[in-house]
Amino acid sequence: MIDLLIEKIGSCNNPTVIGLDPTLSMIPSYIKEESIEAYGKTTKALGHMFTIFNKQIINRIYDLVPAVKPQIAMYEQYGIEGLQAYMDTISYAKEKGLLVIGDIKRGDIGSTAASYAAHLSGVDIEGTLLDPWQEDAVTLNPYLGIDGIQPFIEAANHHNKGMFLLVKTSNPSSKDIQDLELKDSGKKVYEEVGSLVSQWGLQSMGKLGYSNVGAVVGATHREQGVSLRRQMPHTFFLVPGYGAQGGKAEDLKGFFDRDGIGCIVNSSRGITEAYKNSSKYGERDFAEAARGAVLSMKEDLNHSLSGIRGKGNGA
Amino acid sequence: MIDLLIEKIGSCNNPTVIGLDPTLSMIPSYIKEESIEAYGKTTKALGHMFTIFNKQIINRIYDLVPAVKPQIAMYEQYGIEGLQAYMDTISYAKEKGLLVIGDIKRGDIGSTAASYAAHLSGVDIEGTLLDPWQEDAVTLNPYLGIDGIQPFIEAANHHNKGMFLLVKTSNPSSKDIQDLELKDSGKKVYEEVGSLVSQWGLQSMGKLGYSNVGAVVGATHREQGVSLRRQMPHTFFLVPGYGAQGGKAEDLKGFFDRDGIGCIVNSSRGITEAYKNSSKYGERDFAEAARGAVLSMKEDLNHSLSGIRGKGNGA
Repeated sequence: MIDLLIEKIGSCNNPTVIGLDPTLSMIPSYIKEESIEAYGKTTKALGHMFTIFNKQIINRIYDLVPAVKPQIAMYEQYGIEGLQAYMDTISYAKEKGLLVIGDIKRGDIGSTAASYAAHLSGVDIEGTLLDPWQEDAVTLNPYLGIDGIQPFIEAANHHNKGMFLLVKTSNPSSKDIQDLELKDSGKKVYEEVGSLVSQWGLQSMGKLGYSNVGAVVGATHREQGVSLRRQMPHTFFLVPGYGAQGGKAEDLKGFFDRDGIGCIVNSSRGITEAYKNSSKYGERDFAEAARGAVLSMKEDLNHSLSGIRGKGNGA
Repeated sequence: MIDLLIEKIGSCNNPTVIGLDPTLSMIPSYIKEESIEAYGKTTKALGHMFTIFNKQIINRIYDLVPAVKPQIAMYEQYGIEGLQAYMDTISYAKEKGLLVIGDIKRGDIGSTAASYAAHLSGVDIEGTLLDPWQEDAVTLNPYLGIDGIQPFIEAANHHNKGMFLLVKTSNPSSKDIQDLELKDSGKKVYEEVGSLVSQWGLQSMGKLGYSNVGAVVGATHREQGVSLRRQMPHTFFLVPGYGAQGGKAEDLKGFFDRDGIGCIVNSSRGITEAYKNSSKYGERDFAEAARGAVLSMKEDLNHSLSGIRGKGNGA
């Protein structure tokens, strides 16, 4: 997975992943009304509107970005019909040639972790292989230790998939636990988790110097990003928090390696709700507005990366 | 939720929750064959067999235990049809008067955490309230800090629900991160997480001295259980790891308070696969075997609690 992601970032010249995290308030009223007219105020109507919304966004951005990242919580809250929209969104994104990172943040142990790993491996029903989820990579929570991750590493190795493990999240209270300082190493918890993730990742190295076991490192932690980049030279970073959460392209330079790779930056609402932020667009232009926002973000990131890349090539 | 759980534990005289974590290999062959005949080797067949299996187990145990705990991963691996079985199991368990703890171990931030909290609160679709998931309580991962938990606490307070936060899990590699020692407090990570969970729980206290914010503490960590019990006097423990994972009733005494409450012990395979462990039962007796195993576990726990309870009343 990671080699393909790196290649696609290169061919798009865009280290961006678009978060497809629909909310009811994000959906243009004409789609909302049409869906409720067809299905009533039901979870089926919700699933229908999310699917239509996502497909139209995908239609206008699939040529610009390597990947999308649907956040399963936004769908899961509406139960089965919501999750059907999550799956339909993934299928459609894959048809359009996009890589799909399922933002599922699962984490469990033993046979349970092995079951969750079906997100990457599919399932075997008495000799018939099925792949209900179809994600290319997923996000995972490492708090339970390697037991929770190992089945995903096996799945990644057998099915060319990948994963991003939470190391330092972008939220303010990420400090509650992640920033506690450890006695023996003097490191913080998230740094120790970073070391573990880096070490675990050696089991699934791609050909381009990075592991299929990546890390989630929030854009809101500029200095931590730089230091983690140094400590985790073969760990690809998935970086949430750009835009709506306050992270700026300039702050993200240090998350990349000196060749300007090693990092993919997520934006969700900044793209999918762009139509609300400019008088240039009406609500029927939401997908066009998303395309405009992707282009701006691409320019923004590439502008701040241009310095690094020059240096990287010569170094 | 927590008051109701304590009352039901009392009226059943049984601090046990049954994990409904079906696997394909656990299902008796006649149910498997019947389902595959009806639906082929599909996820629908899987969902069908899990639902039949669970309902029959529930029919034979609902009068003995206060609660069941379906592990969502076992269903989620089969996609939508698997999750439909999870929901159908929950509905059926609730019809039978059981409390349902959804073992979902979700954990995310901000608006995403708020979306996951729909597991407890349901969703509002343009003024229509729906509750697709119906769990009475869920398990959560606290690694992202209070941001990830607060929406669930609000939901618990508004809808009389509850949660159990991972503090010390029962797996061997729980030590990877949870047992790291912290510099300032000298505590281990899991102890610090325990303190946070205890503190967060003050926002949602029940009337019987315990909070709706409980903790998951693995049965395989006897000493840690005792010390956490002391540090977290108002935090109810959900304890996995009894039986199949090696935890014994005798080891669990210290997880209870001096009145013999404050703790509910989970068993999954030990109950639902009991029919495989005795020549007394054929596979058509799986539900009867489960009942037998619940009765043995009840006796085992109550035997080791009898000492505590005597002391507790007098203390």
